[in-house]
Amino acid sequence: MIRKIKIIGCANALPNNKIKFGNQTRYRLSENQTILDLAEKAVQNALLDAELKISDIDCIIAGMATPLQAIPCNAALIHERVAFGTDIPAMDINTSCTSFISALDIAAYMTDSGKYHRILIVSGDTASAALNPDQRESFELFSDAVSAFIVSSCTEEKGVLFSTQKTWSEGAHDTEIRGGCGLMPSFMMTEENKTDYYFDMKGLRVLRLSAWRLPAFMRESLERAEITLDEIDIVIPHQASKALSFMMPKLKIPKEKYIDHVSEYGNMISASVPFILCNAIHKKHIRQSNTIMLIGTAAGLTANLMILKV
Amino acid sequence: MIRKIKIIGCANALPNNKIKFGNQTRYRLSENQTILDLAEKAVQNALLDAELKISDIDCIIAGMATPLQAIPCNAALIHERVAFGTDIPAMDINTSCTSFISALDIAAYMTDSGKYHRILIVSGDTASAALNPDQRESFELFSDAVSAFIVSSCTEEKGVLFSTQKTWSEGAHDTEIRGGCGLMPSFMMTEENKTDYYFDMKGLRVLRLSAWRLPAFMRESLERAEITLDEIDIVIPHQASKALSFMMPKLKIPKEKYIDHVSEYGNMISASVPFILCNAIHKKHIRQSNTIMLIGTAAGLTANLMILKV
Repeated sequence: MIRKIKIIGCANALPNNKIKFGNQTRYRLSENQTILDLAEKAVQNALLDAELKISDIDCIIAGMATPLQAIPCNAALIHERVAFGTDIPAMDINTSCTSFISALDIAAYMTDSGKYHRILIVSGDTASAALNPDQRESFELFSDAVSAFIVSSCTEEKGVLFSTQKTWSEGAHDTEIRGGCGLMPSFMMTEENKTDYYFDMKGLRVLRLSAWRLPAFMRESLERAEITLDEIDIVIPHQASKALSFMMPKLKIPKEKYIDHVSEYGNMISASVPFILCNAIHKKHIRQSNTIMLIGTAAGLTANLMILKV
Repeated sequence: MIRKIKIIGCANALPNNKIKFGNQTRYRLSENQTILDLAEKAVQNALLDAELKISDIDCIIAGMATPLQAIPCNAALIHERVAFGTDIPAMDINTSCTSFISALDIAAYMTDSGKYHRILIVSGDTASAALNPDQRESFELFSDAVSAFIVSSCTEEKGVLFSTQKTWSEGAHDTEIRGGCGLMPSFMMTEENKTDYYFDMKGLRVLRLSAWRLPAFMRESLERAEITLDEIDIVIPHQASKALSFMMPKLKIPKEKYIDHVSEYGNMISASVPFILCNAIHKKHIRQSNTIMLIGTAAGLTANLMILKV
């Protein structure tokens, strides 16, 4: 049974500040720029792409991994930038790096029910706010970016064919920022515990847990969805790291079927999946009636998979 | 059209540390305690109340206003405490103080679709992590608390009769914590800007904006829901502040119809609505087949309203 939803517009925004680590390109906010500036730009262009105005939108979802402020929620701060003066409801949905997949999944319930008609989903994070220069692996991996999607209710057979998420909390501390929020407020920061306020990734542990869990997750998901990989036109994976090219064969996804832009953009946290998806749509790598798979792992450890008829 | 969902268990947890400001009672975590300790206790008791084990749950939603860590999401950290070793999906849904109402609203789509059967919703925040002793109004208002609910799919005519949310971002900075997260990381804290890392509430502005927006919001909601206040058995409002007794008459809700426990518990942020709801269920103020209204305002400024057949 399909949960009906249709992509009607999207756009990405990157900061101007482009840096290189060897052959890897990354994007970082400059000092006078925030992720909200990128969000504003991405949303405006997504609206143009959909040929809509903000007043046509009936819900704003921030599908972001990291908080901009502890209060209010990210969606309210985005609302201020793109929907000021309106009363459009604003809400955050967060499963870390796979927040966009979760937000789209929830949005599909909302449009399929007939209660909502046009939903704006904004994903993106300020990776650069907490990268630890002493942890080279993560310092050289991430980019700041935002991707905005406009999705709508529809009468065609388009939408979520299948979706599933699993969380294995034995990985809860393999990817984290311990300090800055409720458990360890800024006031507790000292010279000694300063690294707790940086992003901390135990790359090898994440990779091991993923390599252990994902093949069975993929196999079971396809079985439950009653679909084979042959029937999937294109796979949009979260751009977690260079290990993508190691993980995809383990999931039996052939090279020609998935998009790997880790060298070009790095890990854009919650923006990764929608950014690559939006690029693929605009470059016509994805066409009407294609069946696509969105898949990713996230801090948690969470795995998220969606099969979508576009 | 009802979106079917049924409350099958709930429990609250408060810290032992009980303090008094005049005739007002507040609860605050002690130094060696975190909101996760309260969450663990509330969830265990909610499971007992529902006569279920954690393995009976198919989704964990953290409906919380504030992040425990910037990464991973709160639900993953709760998962670690209550569902370690399982693969139950974990997700955050956040509309600040009304996060529980939003989480329940989304949960009702999930159970009504038949895809999910038993969902755990956990709400609560570490208010005390960021209260500013120099801002007496807010310092003396908040309590730390957690409330946990277990909701299920059902065949009876129980569930969400109506729900609506509006966000007016002209209030985005009336209730906020500016520092600690992506826009103003802990590393930027100085003696001069330290107050930016505290909770900051412009109480009078919030009250004015609410008093302006809420009466029309209530009137329109009842019209759209095709229901009158007479048909509502009990109203569970967010325990925003002592102004509750000023706001309720403005919404034409008579004193005998709503619960005001601000003196006893203060504002428990996202735990307020479920905490009062759970108490009312356990004290049999709410009975089978009652029609209840959950209503609240949240940082954003967001207003949330749900009419629920229990």
